[in-house]
Amino acid sequence: MNPIGLVESPLVDRDLAPKQGDEGAPDAWLVFHPEMREGIRDLEVGTEIIVLTWLDRAQRDVLLVHPRGDRQAPLRGVFSTRSPDRPNPVGLHAVHIAEIDDLRVRVRNLEALDGTPIVDVKPLLGPVQSR
Amino acid sequence: MNPIGLVESPLVDRDLAPKQGDEGAPDAWLVFHPEMREGIRDLEVGTEIIVLTWLDRAQRDVLLVHPRGDRQAPLRGVFSTRSPDRPNPVGLHAVHIAEIDDLRVRVRNLEALDGTPIVDVKPLLGPVQSR
Repeated sequence: MNPIGLVESPLVDRDLAPKQGDEGAPDAWLVFHPEMREGIRDLEVGTEIIVLTWLDRAQRDVLLVHPRGDRQAPLRGVFSTRSPDRPNPVGLHAVHIAEIDDLRVRVRNLEALDGTPIVDVKPLLGPVQSR
Repeated sequence: MNPIGLVESPLVDRDLAPKQGDEGAPDAWLVFHPEMREGIRDLEVGTEIIVLTWLDRAQRDVLLVHPRGDRQAPLRGVFSTRSPDRPNPVGLHAVHIAEIDDLRVRVRNLEALDGTPIVDVKPLLGPVQSR
């Protein structure tokens, strides 16, 4: 995988970051590489997108986790959790576009850490008949 | 990325495959590698999951596409489409678990082709207060 850009965020410490975007995560900028310019040209302020990231600070040898880092909670198979620690730590984030400035796209409530590589961006799908 | 398993599906021809799972895609088996056994142990029949795949037959040098392969449709930046042809061809599929047989998990309506590598599986997230 070749990153298409990087996250610019005030979040730098994993232990202090919210576990999900809708749990108090700040705005962040998606900063795309210049060679991706054509690919992002139809992104629009006010719409929702799905951002895929590579959670580069994750542990990859993890198959069982205590959900939400709560050591009192019973261990659970990692594929039934959203833990960032997992064999292929791809982050999945549904976010709202607040602003676009050339190659920089500001989104609301992103829990990814500063410097996290962006892998892909996809639109949310509406009903079948509107595609 | 190291695949955690492979898709087993009757779909072998990209031109004949539905564009999305809810457009007539068949059931398929997710066949996990034995070393992933602990990670999948809490998957449950009757639940919805998100499956991430690596669309290994995609073209990766594509930034503009005709949506849904319709050559009459105006070109669109690939990050505003669900085209499989994109710089990092990660497939995103929300599917229902119909059956589990050890390392094999049958899911409904998956549009991925036979042999597609599986990258990750995540639960759908419910409301904040139920996590």
